[in-house]
Amino acid sequence: MNPLDNFRVVLVGTLYSGNVGSCCRAMANMGMTRLRLAAPRIQDPDFKEGEKLAVHAVDVLRSREEYATFAEAVADCAAVVGTTARGGLYRQHVRTPRETAGELLEIASSAPVALVFGREDKGLLNEEVMQCTHLVRIPVAESYTSINLSQAVMVMAYEIFSAAGTYTPPREKAPLAPQAQKDTMFAHWRDMLRLIGFMEDKQTDHMMQGVHRIFSRGVRTKDDAAIMLGVARQATWAANAAGRRPPEGG
Amino acid sequence: MNPLDNFRVVLVGTLYSGNVGSCCRAMANMGMTRLRLAAPRIQDPDFKEGEKLAVHAVDVLRSREEYATFAEAVADCAAVVGTTARGGLYRQHVRTPRETAGELLEIASSAPVALVFGREDKGLLNEEVMQCTHLVRIPVAESYTSINLSQAVMVMAYEIFSAAGTYTPPREKAPLAPQAQKDTMFAHWRDMLRLIGFMEDKQTDHMMQGVHRIFSRGVRTKDDAAIMLGVARQATWAANAAGRRPPEGG
Repeated sequence: MNPLDNFRVVLVGTLYSGNVGSCCRAMANMGMTRLRLAAPRIQDPDFKEGEKLAVHAVDVLRSREEYATFAEAVADCAAVVGTTARGGLYRQHVRTPRETAGELLEIASSAPVALVFGREDKGLLNEEVMQCTHLVRIPVAESYTSINLSQAVMVMAYEIFSAAGTYTPPREKAPLAPQAQKDTMFAHWRDMLRLIGFMEDKQTDHMMQGVHRIFSRGVRTKDDAAIMLGVARQATWAANAAGRRPPEGG
Repeated sequence: MNPLDNFRVVLVGTLYSGNVGSCCRAMANMGMTRLRLAAPRIQDPDFKEGEKLAVHAVDVLRSREEYATFAEAVADCAAVVGTTARGGLYRQHVRTPRETAGELLEIASSAPVALVFGREDKGLLNEEVMQCTHLVRIPVAESYTSINLSQAVMVMAYEIFSAAGTYTPPREKAPLAPQAQKDTMFAHWRDMLRLIGFMEDKQTDHMMQGVHRIFSRGVRTKDDAAIMLGVARQATWAANAAGRRPPEGG
């Protein structure tokens, strides 16, 4: 089973359906689909704003489960992870999402895990914090520590999704240029740069150091090397076709 | 200089002022304050929704700089980092925000860095991608790859803020319990558990293994150890006060 399927995003006492919708989209972006509302206080019972902001994650919104209490919403979960912006009493053993993500994935490989997010206006209450098995705080600038509900869901889900390692970063599809191809390219550049008068003979090695440095960063694939070889060849042709060496300079 | 001050969040062709406001809040959460709008298409010229959603980051919103073109908005930047949800032509050399964050912080220690986010409806155009020195794609589930604008800003800013290492995760403030204090606690528990008939003599070592295992996870601070020592003492007192051993059981 994909451990991401075992995460339950539990929103406690949420006020705005728009926030719920934004949470759904963030969840779907990060491979999570199971939303629970505990003791919701939604002002807009039709979830109109929520449906709009969920965009293509409207299925997540519509398949939500609602519970009268926090305890019921997390009753079947093997780990209950509270997010808190505050420190202080009862909240000293918090860790960051990144520190916690691996452990949560391990638990989620065999049992449901609740990711719990508090009210827009007052977060989680102390009695709710007490029922959490884990507490996390998102790293945040001291000058503005209050994070929007769906942004908090995004960061937490993003860390878990990233730790799950299911995402493969796209790699260059074009085959990398072998050194011999680059050597050919550099040889043509060297000849071309002398032909067009970019550098004098005695400066050649020094200037080519710079060209090598620049191209070692930029020329990676066979296509890259072919393009830059073409530039040298064409400049060589143009300089020869002009019937004279252009003025010195470089 | 704090490198975070050198980041410019550049929103290109943005449509909704609410998104701009949410971006401002996310930026402020992550220690960034400099917002630029390139060729904005804001439908709500007073930024009413934006002011509402920026909440305490309204200064970030109000001090935004507007530019007629993308090129002007990034003209002074030493690195131009485009975010893209798409792959394909011109977008093969993308990396993840986490892979890129360290390098961007290094550049930002001496020069401005633009974090560029495209239009809600069509992202960045190919000619804009071409002007970027770096391309990033946020890891995302294949089933829903389109991330809300302010959520994308949050993840990118969060990764850079985290890599900056300015955030110190809150640590337990209470002093940790030394082993001797725990030994005293365990001794009292051992005696108490025998006194109340929780375990027979021959089970003692076996049962105490379980108690040690549980308390090794849970009892960390001096306060923790003092609480659990108090429990053992009080149970001992109560059992003695009852004037008899309670019935056997475990």
